[in-house]
Amino acid sequence: MPKASSSMTSPEFTYPEGSAAFPHRGLVGIAGLAPHEIMFLLDEAQQWVELNRHAQKRRDLLSGLTIINAFFENSTRTLLSFEIAGKRLGADVVNMAVATSSVKKGETLIDTAMTLNAMRADAIAIRHGSSGAVQLIADKVDCPVINAGDGQHEHPTQALLDALTIRQAKRAFNGLRVTICGDILHSRVARSNILCLTSLGAEVRVCAPPALMPADIERMNVQVFHDFDAALRNADVVMMLRLQMERMQGQFIPSPREYRHLYGLSLERLAKAESNALVMHPGPMNRGIEIDSNVADLADRSLITTQVEMGVAIRMACLDVLTRKARGLEGWA
Amino acid sequence: MPKASSSMTSPEFTYPEGSAAFPHRGLVGIAGLAPHEIMFLLDEAQQWVELNRHAQKRRDLLSGLTIINAFFENSTRTLLSFEIAGKRLGADVVNMAVATSSVKKGETLIDTAMTLNAMRADAIAIRHGSSGAVQLIADKVDCPVINAGDGQHEHPTQALLDALTIRQAKRAFNGLRVTICGDILHSRVARSNILCLTSLGAEVRVCAPPALMPADIERMNVQVFHDFDAALRNADVVMMLRLQMERMQGQFIPSPREYRHLYGLSLERLAKAESNALVMHPGPMNRGIEIDSNVADLADRSLITTQVEMGVAIRMACLDVLTRKARGLEGWA
Amino acid sequence: MPKASSSMTSPEFTYPEGSAAFPHRGLVGIAGLAPHEIMFLLDEAQQWVELNRHAQKRRDLLSGLTIINAFFENSTRTLLSFEIAGKRLGADVVNMAVATSSVKKGETLIDTAMTLNAMRADAIAIRHGSSGAVQLIADKVDCPVINAGDGQHEHPTQALLDALTIRQAKRAFNGLRVTICGDILHSRVARSNILCLTSLGAEVRVCAPPALMPADIERMNVQVFHDFDAALRNADVVMMLRLQMERMQGQFIPSPREYRHLYGLSLERLAKAESNALVMHPGPMNRGIEIDSNVADLADRSLITTQVEMGVAIRMACLDVLTRKARGLEGWA
Repeated sequence: MPKASSSMTSPEFTYPEGSAAFPHRGLVGIAGLAPHEIMFLLDEAQQWVELNRHAQKRRDLLSGLTIINAFFENSTRTLLSFEIAGKRLGADVVNMAVATSSVKKGETLIDTAMTLNAMRADAIAIRHGSSGAVQLIADKVDCPVINAGDGQHEHPTQALLDALTIRQAKRAFNGLRVTICGDILHSRVARSNILCLTSLGAEVRVCAPPALMPADIERMNVQVFHDFDAALRNADVVMMLRLQMERMQGQFIPSPREYRHLYGLSLERLAKAESNALVMHPGPMNRGIEIDSNVADLADRSLITTQVEMGVAIRMACLDVLTRKARGLEGWA
Repeated sequence: MPKASSSMTSPEFTYPEGSAAFPHRGLVGIAGLAPHEIMFLLDEAQQWVELNRHAQKRRDLLSGLTIINAFFENSTRTLLSFEIAGKRLGADVVNMAVATSSVKKGETLIDTAMTLNAMRADAIAIRHGSSGAVQLIADKVDCPVINAGDGQHEHPTQALLDALTIRQAKRAFNGLRVTICGDILHSRVARSNILCLTSLGAEVRVCAPPALMPADIERMNVQVFHDFDAALRNADVVMMLRLQMERMQGQFIPSPREYRHLYGLSLERLAKAESNALVMHPGPMNRGIEIDSNVADLADRSLITTQVEMGVAIRMACLDVLTRKARGLEGWA
Repeated sequence: MPKASSSMTSPEFTYPEGSAAFPHRGLVGIAGLAPHEIMFLLDEAQQWVELNRHAQKRRDLLSGLTIINAFFENSTRTLLSFEIAGKRLGADVVNMAVATSSVKKGETLIDTAMTLNAMRADAIAIRHGSSGAVQLIADKVDCPVINAGDGQHEHPTQALLDALTIRQAKRAFNGLRVTICGDILHSRVARSNILCLTSLGAEVRVCAPPALMPADIERMNVQVFHDFDAALRNADVVMMLRLQMERMQGQFIPSPREYRHLYGLSLERLAKAESNALVMHPGPMNRGIEIDSNVADLADRSLITTQVEMGVAIRMACLDVLTRKARGLEGWA
């Protein structure tokens, strides 16, 4: 039976009973995090935002710890972000390459997990194409596991970095109107952001063509739109999702051109939101499809590169906090 | 003319005359190592087993040294193990990716070796699909070379980690009965283990279907079996080999199902061995083919994840010992 | 309008107006460097040549800095060289893998650049298949960018390491006769070497079959040959270029065999040059095509592995010098 907080389950995924997402097992999802825990991570990340602006960016907090980035799905930017985060904290970081993985030789995911564990990893960041795969691994290893994106389930560090980005610009989440537009159905980014932002008190609107909206979306604490113009009214933040290439083949949307017409963010459309509304996108962008170039490059209002910057800081905070217990420090309040 | 100790030569490989495997040229094979040299490496590894159980796992023994992992064959776990070993000793570790290698551009192996040498590597770990390739490189470079598996020749660090695993559980090798079952013909793991374990005084039995048994196996100091049940009688250790996918196509075995029936390790079959017999497998496993899941996961008796753990320690010991001369220290007694 | 110094432009590339190649934007090309700036970099590299011959090769000059190697084209040796250079200087080095890059997902190059920038890279080394791509990125990021080879434009660190190699052997560039032979048309190595060597006072001769010679080569300060024997007369240095596989298909040369006959460097042909003429090749070599094995392996006279060694030192010098400003030090005189 799924937990209350993970109501927007994809068919393949249900939370195992009683598995606390955090801190015992690392950070598998935003679901399970209390608002003060989210805010604690944002607060912790703030120091790294500052540090990263200097030439000397290294701290030796995690000196001698081994962090493994096991990415079963390709993702250059998220992998780079985790790798940089670990190295800046002084850890020994190793990447497990997907294409050469034993998984290709028929090894089970559990055996891969047991192998990483036996090498005495102190933290493992995992990206996997299947919802629930990260929890499966987290249940089998002794060290904290960070979900770097699993199937259509969660991408918690993305939601945290988005929250940090918003907090820097808007200060408070309470009553903030955030419109998330795009392929809500398949998006773990949407899912984690909905959980995070509603938990922090924001008013979240989701907008998608009917075929890309989850059937059970009503069970989440969001307002549902199919008309982007209506979804934008009074919005303080507009968060666009990437349209995956494989959805552009006619099964889900008629054509990229029509998608852009109905759900792309143009300057004209952005004008329907609040006059100082912020623009976000998790990247990589399809310029000219879900977002126009002149919107993506809007000075002051587009926070897309800020999101990338916050990403490194959030991952540093997560790696630091989650390994505190192993380092003999208190985890968190 | 092959050396006496490398009698189980594959057709393509013969040891060059007078090439001492170790310590002048690094660790190309178990062949050429005296029993006390093997024991010395196991003793050295023991300290790293302990260290790796702490959060702070880094020592600066190899600080400033450059270690190159040149893997011409894919192998996630062995590469990870070498990379982690080098980093925990404080070295600068770089991996040379296979898929992007100049070798793909038609460069000769010798030229690749000369290039790595000219970059002033202090140690090179090499995996290559051809038997003898590692010796070829070792002969051309100034630094110690560690064989991370070459063709059907040797995989010495695997044999050392297996020996360390056995020693932890059984204390003495003398008279220990070890049954190695699987594709003996193509297995460098089997070959290195036979050399290592017989050198240490164990009684080694090899078991394979006739098509997967080397023709000249009689020249090695082993007992040869085709009946797995007979090979298991009184065995103290059962070491299963991975059945390579490419052998499952009917040329060597009738079918995976029949292979499992005759040579797979089930609980029932394991009962034919000593009552406390240990189970080992170099990984990655084909669960349900060469080994059943309930055997692989046997508490206390399955040492499969321990093998992985010992692997990091053994590679740390090899990297430390082999670079001592370069660091102005005495190599070994 | 192209700058005067980049007269050998490929059709796709022109220098943007007013973009100083160095030091504000890093090292995009040899074009734009004054002779004393080139010599300064060679002088700086010399210390690293010495350091790299010791076991302890690490300096902490770049401790805490993040260096990203973004290679959009495969190149094992150049990537290894940059990675080793950065690590020996104590930096945190991360490689952005091509095959898994967001670029594959349709992201623009500029967006990739903005992403790397937002992660607060302190230097970026870039290899790209398109001429001008590196300048494009350099214009968008806040940190110095080093061109690790872009299309048919430039490969400045190759030219610098070649100059360092020549200087070690010959002391002075003035009046030195250097013959560069091979596919001049498509070679960024040739282009950067021509700019570098002529700038330092050498007499440069280029030799290629007519189809592999740029139409506007006359505008560069070189002597043009189609007859290799004539080009070799009195030459002090013979620099052979790699014949790319894709040129061997009959479009540019009749056959590899004929190419070797006319433009391959054999011992007999080398005898037409000065008696102590030096042999160079940027690697990887096609032995038996552009260069015979007995020439490539000539003791004392073949500097091919020395070039590799100088490569690490040159990249260390570039990374050091280019990040001085960020580290609060004076850049260079």
